[in-house]
Amino acid sequence: MKLGHPYFAPLRLLASAVSMLAVLLAGCATPSTLRGTGDLGVVIERASGTVQVVTQQPPRLLARVEGLGDLSHASVVFSRDARYAFVFGRDGGLSKVDLLTGRLAGRVLQAGNSIGGAISSDGRIVVAQNYEPGGVRLFDAETLAPLADISTRDPVSGLASKVVGLADLPGNRFAFSLFEAGEIWVADATDPRHPVVTRYAGVGRNPYDGLASSDGRYYLAGLYGEDGLALLDTWHPETGVRRILDGYGHGEEKLPVYKMPHLRGWAMAGEYAFLPAIGRHEVLVADSRTWQERTRVPVYGQPVFAMAEPSGRRVWVNFAFPHNDTVQVIDVPTMQVVRTLKPGRGILHMEFTGRGDAVWLSSRDDDRLVVVDTRTLEMSTVLPARNPSGIFFTWRAARMGM
Amino acid sequence: MKLGHPYFAPLRLLASAVSMLAVLLAGCATPSTLRGTGDLGVVIERASGTVQVVTQQPPRLLARVEGLGDLSHASVVFSRDARYAFVFGRDGGLSKVDLLTGRLAGRVLQAGNSIGGAISSDGRIVVAQNYEPGGVRLFDAETLAPLADISTRDPVSGLASKVVGLADLPGNRFAFSLFEAGEIWVADATDPRHPVVTRYAGVGRNPYDGLASSDGRYYLAGLYGEDGLALLDTWHPETGVRRILDGYGHGEEKLPVYKMPHLRGWAMAGEYAFLPAIGRHEVLVADSRTWQERTRVPVYGQPVFAMAEPSGRRVWVNFAFPHNDTVQVIDVPTMQVVRTLKPGRGILHMEFTGRGDAVWLSSRDDDRLVVVDTRTLEMSTVLPARNPSGIFFTWRAARMGM
Repeated sequence: MKLGHPYFAPLRLLASAVSMLAVLLAGCATPSTLRGTGDLGVVIERASGTVQVVTQQPPRLLARVEGLGDLSHASVVFSRDARYAFVFGRDGGLSKVDLLTGRLAGRVLQAGNSIGGAISSDGRIVVAQNYEPGGVRLFDAETLAPLADISTRDPVSGLASKVVGLADLPGNRFAFSLFEAGEIWVADATDPRHPVVTRYAGVGRNPYDGLASSDGRYYLAGLYGEDGLALLDTWHPETGVRRILDGYGHGEEKLPVYKMPHLRGWAMAGEYAFLPAIGRHEVLVADSRTWQERTRVPVYGQPVFAMAEPSGRRVWVNFAFPHNDTVQVIDVPTMQVVRTLKPGRGILHMEFTGRGDAVWLSSRDDDRLVVVDTRTLEMSTVLPARNPSGIFFTWRAARMGM
Repeated sequence: MKLGHPYFAPLRLLASAVSMLAVLLAGCATPSTLRGTGDLGVVIERASGTVQVVTQQPPRLLARVEGLGDLSHASVVFSRDARYAFVFGRDGGLSKVDLLTGRLAGRVLQAGNSIGGAISSDGRIVVAQNYEPGGVRLFDAETLAPLADISTRDPVSGLASKVVGLADLPGNRFAFSLFEAGEIWVADATDPRHPVVTRYAGVGRNPYDGLASSDGRYYLAGLYGEDGLALLDTWHPETGVRRILDGYGHGEEKLPVYKMPHLRGWAMAGEYAFLPAIGRHEVLVADSRTWQERTRVPVYGQPVFAMAEPSGRRVWVNFAFPHNDTVQVIDVPTMQVVRTLKPGRGILHMEFTGRGDAVWLSSRDDDRLVVVDTRTLEMSTVLPARNPSGIFFTWRAARMGM
C-alpha cells in the first residue's frame, strides 16, 4: 500500500505536525533557562578559546561557549540586565555571549590586537581599547554596530599610541591612557557617534595600565617608565593630573620583574588603597584620601593582584612566577598576613561574590576553579576548567570602574 | 460520512497532536520571560496591597502582583540571583515575588506588626524584624520555612522590645536595635537554626532606626530619646558602642517634627556622610572616618531621605509635609543646592539605577513614578502607579546593608 494514496494525507499531516511539535519544543525555553542572572559568572578558558557560564550558588558549570578566538589576557563586561557578557579577546575580537542560552549572540573582529574594554554607565555603549591599530572604538551594546572611533595617531609622528587602562566614568564618560604619548584622555560619549575628548598631556612616561575608583571620581595610571602614579581627580579637572606615591613604581626598581601587577586588582577599600608593589615582595598601603603611603605588608612573592573582600576587612594577594601556586590573605585592621593557601598551580585570577561569602580562584596549570569559603578560609568546591584565567561575576553589571 | 469510520483515526490523532502542541506551547516560557534580571525593580503600591515589577531601561511596567496585604512602610530585599523579591509588609506578611513570572512564589504571615527585614550575605536566610510581638525571625530563603526566633523579651519586665534598624553584615551576621531596651544586638547566623547573639546594652534611649555602612563595617542607630547617634565599629567590637554627633538628634529639638528621617537614606559616600537633620531645614555633613560634623547644607524643608548618586558627586533630598512636593539636588564639591525639582505631590522615595544614569521618584498623591535623567536633571519618563511608595532595584541583591 503506497502512502501516496489520497486518504493517507492525514497521516502525512500528522507526521509533519509531530515534527513541528518537536522543533517548537526544542526552541522553547525550558524552566531551567528561566532563571535570575544576578548569581551567574563567566570564566575565561584561554587555551581553548572558550568561556564557561557558571552559577555561583551552587558552584556549577551551566554552559561552555566556543569560538571566541584568542582569549589570552581576555576581559569581560556585562550588559546592564546581566544577561549578556561582552568578551574582549587579545585578537581584537569582541564577542557577545548570552548567559541564558549559552550561545554567542554576536561577534565582531574590531581590531588586530586588543587588551580590554568597558561599558557606558547607561549600558548602551561598549568600548574597546586597542594596541593595534591603537585608539578606542565605540559600539552599540545591542547590535555591536560601530558608533565611533577615537584615533590616538600623532599628526606629527604618524604613530598611533596603544591604549591601556580604559575605565568607565559616570555620565557615559570613559578614561584611558596612551602608552607612547604619555597622556590620559577622558571621552564624553553623551553623543556616542561624536565623543568629545579632553586630553591631559605629560602625565608621565609609558602609562601601562589604569583604573577608576569604585565611585568613578579618581582615575589612576601606573607608569612603566618612571616612579609614581598619575592621578586625575575628575571632580576637579581644572587641577589637571598630579603625581602621587613617588616611592611606587618601576623606574628605580633593580629587582627583576616577572610580571607587571594588574592595576584593576588594586583594592581601594574604605580609607586604604592596597597596591601590589612592582618587583618587591610587598603590598603597599596608601591613604585613599591623601594618597600618602601608610605602610607596607611583606608577602610571599611579587604580588600580581591585591583584592579586597567586599567588606574591606581582608585583602587577598596572588603572585608572579615562581610563587604563583600561593595566595595570601591580609587582615586589614592588623595589616598582617593571616593565612597562606596553596589552591593550585598557576593561580591567575580571583573573583569575590557580590557580598563576599566566597572567592573563586583560577588555577591555570591544574585546569580547575577553586572556590574558597571566606568565613572558614577552606576550599569548599573544586570545578574542572581548561586553563582558566579571568573570572567575572554578573554583579559587575551594576558597578562602575569595571 | 461519520468520523467514527476507522480510516479517520489519523485525523483524530492529528487533532489531538495539534491540541497537545497548543498545551505544550502555552506552558513553555516565551522569549519575553527569558530575560536578565539585573535591570529590574519592584515598586510598592501601598493602598492596593500590590507591587509593580518594572524594567529600568526602558522604564516600563512588566507585571502587577496582588495579594501582599498591608504594604504601608513596606520594604524589599532580593534573592542573590535577583529573581525573587522578598517583600516585608506592615501586617507581618513576608511575601516572595517571582520577578520573571510576575507571580507570588510564597507568602507567610510571620508576625502581627513588622517593619522590615534583611537577607544574609550568602543569600540563604531571610530575616524579619518585628514590632509585635517584638524580636527577630529567621526563614529559609528558598522555602520560607522558619529557622529560628530571636526573642527580645526582658526576663524581668516580661516586655519584648520592638526591633528596628535590622541590617545584614558580612559572614551571615545581622545587626539590629531594641527600641524599649536601648540596646544593639549582633546575631551570627552561621548556624541559622541556632543564631548566636552579642548584646551591647545602654547605647542610648529609644533607638528608632539604624543602618550599616556599605562595607558592613559600621552600624549606626538613631536615638529618639536623646541627642547623637550610637556607633558600633564591628572591626573593633571590644571598644563597644560609642556616641557620635552629639549635635544631631531629637532630644534638644524644639521644632515640630513632621516625619522622622529615614536612616537608610543616609548617604555614606566617599569621605562624607549626609544626614537629614531632625526637625531642622538642614542636611548635616559628617566626616565618614572621624564622625565629626563638617558642615550643614540649608534645604527647602525637613529632609526625609538624603541619598547620594552612586558616584557620590550629588546628593538628592526629599522632604516631609508640607514640602513633600519638592526634591533638591546638592552638589557635593561645593555643598550647594544646584537644582530644585517639583516632580509631583507626595514624593515618598527615590531609587538610583546601579550606575546612576537615572533616579526614580515615587509620587504617591499623583499616582505616578517619575524618572529623572541625572545628567540633564530633566524628567525623562512618567509611569502610572497606585499610591507608590518604596522603589527597589535588583542591584541591591549584590550589596550589603540593604
